[in-house]
This record gives sequence, C-alpha cells and structure tokens, in this order.
Amino acid sequence: MSPPPLNFWQSCDRNLLSSARETLLEVLERDADRLVNRFYDAFLAHEKALPFLSHSVVHERLSHSLRKWLLTLMEIEPDGDLSDFNDRQRRTGEVHARIRLPMHLVLEGASLIKTDVSKALLAQYGNRQAAIAIVLFNEVMDYAMLQMSEAYVSGAAQRAKVEEAYRLFTLGQDVGVERESQRAALMEWSQSVIFGLFGAAGSKPRIEPISSSEFGLWFRHRASIMFQGSLMLKNIEKDMREIDDRLLPKIENRDAADGTEIAAVVARLQSLVEEIKFLLADLFQSLSASAGARDALTNALNRKFLPSILGREVSLCLQHGTPLSVLMIDVDHFKQINDRWGHPAGDQVLRQVAEIIIEHTRAADIVFRYGGEEFLVALVETDHDKAFEVAERVRAGFMNTDLNVADGTSIRGTISIGVATHRGHPDFQHLIDAADKALYLAKNGGRNQVIAA
Amino acid sequence: MSPPPLNFWQSCDRNLLSSARETLLEVLERDADRLVNRFYDAFLAHEKALPFLSHSVVHERLSHSLRKWLLTLMEIEPDGDLSDFNDRQRRTGEVHARIRLPMHLVLEGASLIKTDVSKALLAQYGNRQAAIAIVLFNEVMDYAMLQMSEAYVSGAAQRAKVEEAYRLFTLGQDVGVERESQRAALMEWSQSVIFGLFGAAGSKPRIEPISSSEFGLWFRHRASIMFQGSLMLKNIEKDMREIDDRLLPKIENRDAADGTEIAAVVARLQSLVEEIKFLLADLFQSLSASAGARDALTNALNRKFLPSILGREVSLCLQHGTPLSVLMIDVDHFKQINDRWGHPAGDQVLRQVAEIIIEHTRAADIVFRYGGEEFLVALVETDHDKAFEVAERVRAGFMNTDLNVADGTSIRGTISIGVATHRGHPDFQHLIDAADKALYLAKNGGRNQVIAA
Repeated sequence: MSPPPLNFWQSCDRNLLSSARETLLEVLERDADRLVNRFYDAFLAHEKALPFLSHSVVHERLSHSLRKWLLTLMEIEPDGDLSDFNDRQRRTGEVHARIRLPMHLVLEGASLIKTDVSKALLAQYGNRQAAIAIVLFNEVMDYAMLQMSEAYVSGAAQRAKVEEAYRLFTLGQDVGVERESQRAALMEWSQSVIFGLFGAAGSKPRIEPISSSEFGLWFRHRASIMFQGSLMLKNIEKDMREIDDRLLPKIENRDAADGTEIAAVVARLQSLVEEIKFLLADLFQSLSASAGARDALTNALNRKFLPSILGREVSLCLQHGTPLSVLMIDVDHFKQINDRWGHPAGDQVLRQVAEIIIEHTRAADIVFRYGGEEFLVALVETDHDKAFEVAERVRAGFMNTDLNVADGTSIRGTISIGVATHRGHPDFQHLIDAADKALYLAKNGGRNQVIAA
Repeated sequence: MSPPPLNFWQSCDRNLLSSARETLLEVLERDADRLVNRFYDAFLAHEKALPFLSHSVVHERLSHSLRKWLLTLMEIEPDGDLSDFNDRQRRTGEVHARIRLPMHLVLEGASLIKTDVSKALLAQYGNRQAAIAIVLFNEVMDYAMLQMSEAYVSGAAQRAKVEEAYRLFTLGQDVGVERESQRAALMEWSQSVIFGLFGAAGSKPRIEPISSSEFGLWFRHRASIMFQGSLMLKNIEKDMREIDDRLLPKIENRDAADGTEIAAVVARLQSLVEEIKFLLADLFQSLSASAGARDALTNALNRKFLPSILGREVSLCLQHGTPLSVLMIDVDHFKQINDRWGHPAGDQVLRQVAEIIIEHTRAADIVFRYGGEEFLVALVETDHDKAFEVAERVRAGFMNTDLNVADGTSIRGTISIGVATHRGHPDFQHLIDAADKALYLAKNGGRNQVIAA
C-alpha cells in the first residue's frame, strides 16, 4: 500500500504524471540556484539560525545538499519501494536535530520554494499543466517534510533528554566545592590584574581577559548548563563584557591615561568584580530552592513533574482502558491557622495532611504539592467510586487528627477535596480542571467535604 | 513586513485574491465533513495515534475543532496583524505536544487535506482559478503548520526533559529498598494465590490478578519509567499476562478441573513467578551498569553525553567565533598489556591515562571515555597549535610514567593521539571523524605520536 500522502501521485493518469514530472524537473534544474538562495536568505533573516549559516563553508555545503535534494525529490516512485526515499529524509531530519536547525525554519523554507515553483509554473505553462504540476510538487515536498519532521522531533527530544541528564548530573556533583573553587578563581584573576597594575609602568603587561580566565571558561562552558535560564547569568555576562571591552584596554594602555582616570577605572573594576561575586553566590543559592524533586516540607512531589506523570498516566488509560482519578485537596481556613498560630504551626498542618494522604494511598499513587496549601493526588487504576472512598477516608482521617500547633496545644482542622475521574479526553489538563471545579464546589458548599465532578 | 511564507498571498492581485478566497471558502464549507473524516481516517491507520483517537468523545471534539480550524484559516489577513492567527496555531501545537499527538501525523493529515481540496478545485473550477486557489491554500496551510511545529517541538522537548528528570529522580531514590519491597510484594501476591487454593473448594475465592496487585501497579506505573527501554520489561509483562489471562481463570474455576490439571497449572504459576523474580533482580542489576554518568574505572564522562556537550560547544564556536579542538587518544598495544599482565593491569593503565589527561587539561575541558581503550577530550577555546601542544604533553607524560602492572613490577607504555580543530561545520560528528582519522594515521605511522588533522 502506498502511503496516503502520495494520493495524488498515485491516482494521477500515468501520461499526465510523466509529463508533469518533466515539467517540474525542467523548472527545478533551471531555477535551482534561485530557489536555494531564496531558502537561505529566509533562513538568514532569522537570528536563531544565524550561527549555523553565516559561515561561508557551511553555506556552500548546505546549498549543494539542498540543490541535490530538490532534484532527487522528482525521482520518487510512489508505486515502488519508498524506503530509500524515506531513509534519506529521516537522515536529513536527524542532522538538523544534531546541528540544532529548527524544524519550523525548514518548513518555512520548503513553503517558500513551493510558492516560487508554483509561480514559475503558472507563468510559463498552460494553466492545467501548471496546476497538476503544482499539486504534485506540493505533495512530494510535504511527504518529504513529514518524514523529516518525525526524525527531527525524535532527535530533538532525545537531545533534550540527554541535556537534562547532563545538567542534573552536573548539579549532582559536589556543588559546594564548585562554588568555592570558582569564587577563588575569580579572586585569583582580579588579583593578577591588580598586580599587573603595580608592575613596571610602561612595560604594558599583557592582562588576561576575565572571559578567558579559568573563571571565565568555567562560566561560559559549565555555569551556563548548571544554571540554565537564570537571569543572573546575563548580568554576569554583561559585567564581564564591560571589564574586557572597556576597562582592561584602559589599564593596559595606562601611560597614556593620567592617574585620576586609572583610579576611576580600578574602582569600577573592583565594584564589577564584587557584583560578579555576589551574583555568583546568588546563583548557587538559587540551586537549592529549585533543584528539589520533592517539596522539602511535606516530601510531596514537585509539581513540575505533573505534566510528565499525568500525561503518561492518561495515555496508559487510553491504551489499556484502565481508570484514573485525581484528588485536589485544600486545607480549610489555612490562612487563619497561620495568622493565629504562626507559620511553624501552618507547616506542621501541611506535613500532617501529606502524612494522612500517604497513609490512605498506595505506592503507585502519586502525591504532588500543588500550591501553598493544596495537594494533588493521582490515584492510578482507580475508578470514581473507589476514588471517592479514598477521599472520604483522607478527609475523615485529617478531621480526627490532633494538630500540635504550639507546645502542649493541639487543635483540629478540616480539608476539602474535589474528585475527578478520567473520561477519555487525551489532555490531562481537563482532569485537573474538573478536580479543581469540584474542589471549588466543596469549598463553597461549606468545606470539610468531598465533592466529585 | 509580512512573513515570507505568505509571499503569494501578498503579491496576489487583490481582486483575484478575494475571488479565490470565496472559491476556497465554498469548497471548504461544502467538503468540511469529508475532509475532517479523511484526516481522522488517516490518523486511525497509525497505531501510534490510536489511543488518543479511538475514543468517540475525543473524535467528536477534535473533529469539531478541526472543522472550525479549517474555516478560520481563510480569515487570515496577510497585510494585517498576524499575532492572533499565530497564537492560535501555537496553542494547537502545544496541545498536540501535551496529548502526545505526533507532529508528523498532523503534517500528514494537512497534506491529505491539501490534495483533496486541490482535486475538488480542479474538478469544479476553471484551471486558472483552481491553480491560484491551490497555491493560496497550500501557502496558508503551510504557514499554520510551521507555527504549530515550532510550538510542538518546543513542547515535546520540554516534556522529554521533565520526563528524564523524573526518571533520574526515581533512580536517585533508595533503589535497594525499592528492589526488596517489590520482591516482597511479588511473594506476598503469590502466597495469597496459594492460600486461596487451599480455601474451601467450591467457595470460589476471588483471586486478585497479578497486574492489579501492589507489585503489578508498581510494575506498570513506576518500573516502566525507571527501566525505560529495557527488554526485560516486555518479558515480565508477557509472564504477567499469561498468569492473569490463562492460569488464574483455571484456578478460580477449579471444581470443574481435575486434580492433575490443577497441579500442572500451579507448577506453571510457580515457574512464572520465579522467572519474574529473576527478571526483576536482573532489571535492578542492570541499573548500576547503565545509570552512571561517569565511567567507574577512569572517572571519565560517559560517552552518552558526547552529542549533547559537543553539540553545544560547536554552537558556541559558531556564535562567538571561538576555537574548539578535540583529542582522540588510544592506548598502544593495549591488548598485549592485557594478555601479558592481566585485566587488572589493563585497568590500571586506563586509570593512569585518565589521570595524565586530567593533569594536562583545565576544569572547563571535558574528558570522555570513548571506547575500550579510547578517550575523547574536548578542549574548549583551544586552537590547533595549543591543542597540539596539550596532546604532546599528554603523550610525553604517559610515556614517562611507570605503570604498576603487578606487585613490584612496573612497565612503560605509549599512547597515540589524533587532533582535530573545528573548522566551521555545524555537525559535531565531522570533528569526531577528523580526530578519528588523525588517530588512525598516528597508529599507522608507528604509534606513540600525535597527528593533527
């Protein structure tokens, strides 16, 4: 069976097909240079693609590949074995993933080429002949793109996985040692600059830029992975650029400058180094807050894993027809407890809720800290009635538990629970929304109760 | 400036455009049902997409969205503000990533719709009118697809990241405890079956299937993440299916069967439980071998991180124009050392090579265990001459080191090194290949030497 996206090729009259192919080959051979340039001009307009394509060697190589690729498209035999054709597209998709050339830019380039070829066909050939060739060309381009896209997406996902593993591995190393040794490396560099200053005037010692110092290399090649996405990285980068581009040249050429100017330069250098030191400390500080997979207070799972886990559980449901339920649990009057008895008492209450949830669920169920005083529990292979029972037990269990809020003082509290059961929608967000709505009803209906969606 | 992929819309004569739009809207409104069914039929032919689409509620909802989506495509104003249009496509791409609906299936469906619409246009309208409408329709579909694709890819990569983080987190838990408690859960289940057997005959005790026992739930919801991709998972699954589908029904209906048959069933059950126990032990055993980010022997980085790190370093090169070099290092006559002095001596040699590499490189450089007796070193911000120097120092350092191969006996060994420096190609594989070729020349040229590509 031929793949469905080559339907027009398949159903096309054979004579019509072979004349359309000749027409296309004519246009492609004649216009190849123009089409290839069109493709790369559009690429170059995107800043994201620039690093890959600005290099002239690359441009030439990729241009050559693209031209060859366009012409081989016409060799497709939709009746024959497509595996060679498909392999070629998949390999291309894999290379794009490896060189980080975004798929949507490739799709954009393909679309541009399609329009250009269509225009050329309409300008030169009879309308019917042009129209047939346009549809055929579109189909084969689309077919190639979908093969490429499949390989690209799987390559890009694989890359993201390994990068995350490496980042976490980097974080798992002894971070305290790294923090101290990089602080020391920074200080060492700044000391070398100061000593350089006191060297024989006029000797113009070559001062090492901070960006290529041990600290600089570490910062650009390791810190950028460890602290991925942190805004502080940008600030340190900015400070380093100011040092290397503005301050160091003035220090190196210091005979030319008078003493007052050098003093101002050194003062600025000192304040920038101090700033980098503080930012660095903050960066390391921020790690402990964000890296945790579990909430330190309640030991519940970090909600960042929610999409991953719930998405997976929903697709297991759809595959095997097993049930899945979700509890959304909220502590009643939590603010009042905090206000009256203080934050340590509030923390104690949250820990107690988590403990009672764990007591009434199984090892395969998953408990998330969802928000301040909210928990979300995924009950695997649990239908609506069973989920309601579990929720009731958790609610009753908590209501009957003494909460120690201060030395010798214990109070009782209540929780409200919304229950939702998966009803076939593939987007897990629907399930969460339903549980949330049920919780809202439980709250509005007087609290200390379980409501099922 | 209008985005390049809407070039034909932009350059099209306004009267022609508005009549083509009307034509398209006519066809789309008339054929919407057929097109939507075409799309889903193609989807359903793919097993991978099945779980999401077989559910009738989903089918109806998604069909409704697709129909609406098709018609709103025609509302595009290429001269106007496209941000609403783009946002809509991106949201769709995000949802697809969330529900794990592969992008290439969406591209396939889009291509099918394009061909169908083209055929309808060619059949019904004048050739010129049809051709113009075909090109316009293709362009706007492609434009929507590229927006969708961008959001999808970023969503899918994000998901892969979080899933990997969760998997590693799961592995980071106390694995020994998990192994023992799941072995116990398995034994507990099999015991409950045996006790069930000795219950009053004819009382037909309800025996819990292994798949919904504590062990079964753990296996399907947690082990499948922890041991992702292991073939042993499939074997355990198969055994569990045989137990639940074939053996347990016979045990439950045991009055009907004679004693001999029951004995055979129980014997088979016992052997399957034993097999699961062994597979489980193997699974946990396999963890220690594969999970390591560093090679236990030499402390060099696992080569699984090579694509991620080298890909990143190559793109830093291209962005900042900094140099990057790679050393491929191989121990000369390693097999002979192993054969003559035994494997512990070989291990000692490998450790020594790693130590000497570390001694001559900086904190930001990265050392990989590349193969049996091969190491790959990425020297960041290092040009060709500098890399050659480093390689020479490593070679000379190793040559002058005593290798303790047995109590009191030490020998000397040599290494060969291939050096390659990044020359602008965005694919890091080129750099590795070049270093590999240089290493081959060093080996063939007599060993104990450095050759630069």
